[in-house]
Amino acid sequence: MKETECFQDAMPGEVCFGCGSENPMGLHIRSFWEGDEGVCRFQPLAHHQGWPALTCGGIIATIIDCHCMATAMAQAIRNEGRALNSEPHYRFATGSVNIRYLKPTPIDQRLQLRACVIDIKDDRKYTLRCEVYAGDQKTVEAEVVAVLVYRSDRSTDAGRFKG
Amino acid sequence: MKETECFQDAMPGEVCFGCGSENPMGLHIRSFWEGDEGVCRFQPLAHHQGWPALTCGGIIATIIDCHCMATAMAQAIRNEGRALNSEPHYRFATGSVNIRYLKPTPIDQRLQLRACVIDIKDDRKYTLRCEVYAGDQKTVEAEVVAVLVYRSDRSTDAGRFKG
Repeated sequence: MKETECFQDAMPGEVCFGCGSENPMGLHIRSFWEGDEGVCRFQPLAHHQGWPALTCGGIIATIIDCHCMATAMAQAIRNEGRALNSEPHYRFATGSVNIRYLKPTPIDQRLQLRACVIDIKDDRKYTLRCEVYAGDQKTVEAEVVAVLVYRSDRSTDAGRFKG
Repeated sequence: MKETECFQDAMPGEVCFGCGSENPMGLHIRSFWEGDEGVCRFQPLAHHQGWPALTCGGIIATIIDCHCMATAMAQAIRNEGRALNSEPHYRFATGSVNIRYLKPTPIDQRLQLRACVIDIKDDRKYTLRCEVYAGDQKTVEAEVVAVLVYRSDRSTDAGRFKG
């Protein structure tokens, strides 16, 4: 099976504001492996402003969150040595986000998010570190907990959303 | 001077995606005092979905962030015993957000955010607790640091965005 390069292409039909291909008003982020890091490049639009000329912190939180959920999924599948779009499919939900806004983030350039999994507990609770760059400048850093809440090979999804 | 009841009405001209009156595609949250709590009621729209029928975590992060910045501003002014729309005007920027998603947050009902300032350091670093409710159910809780970065009575704004 050919590897699907973009993490979100392995999540068809999603409606999420941040990452869903089926959300016509969403942000449509796209994430890819670069070595051991999940990387997302995102060009904010004018209405994503917080302060004039700066990207809204809430938009930044949204792309961090969605990029980390996708990176957790990609890492879980990579750890099993299989292609991103192979069965079983996994989905992660956000347990927590802890975001520090270090500097203002400009809106007139493409942002780069770099995320990696730094801890896995009980095979389902993934902790990720994520950094946001505008050019060479790191403007935001975050720690995010992603919880595996759905897998397509389990007939019950009772564990879904139970964190 | 008549008291401006809505916190955001005391922040005219803002372009912020979450709270700016001048952002035609923004969320336009509105926050008010109820006793010692800043309260915001927000009806998510269909495109604010994360999972089907659930509100996107990034949208929740956005409204928490903006509601806390406005509540910090209102608290700072209240502590000086003056009306919300009186001079000098203050603006806060987000230092950090720490959000725990406790349960899925439905999208088909109006959410209620309740925030209060729990600590103030150096007259400019405000820590707030914020809880999100869907009906009686608390679905999200957060701790947010808001930093006073602009006041209209200072001729320099060198401290702006320095966190």
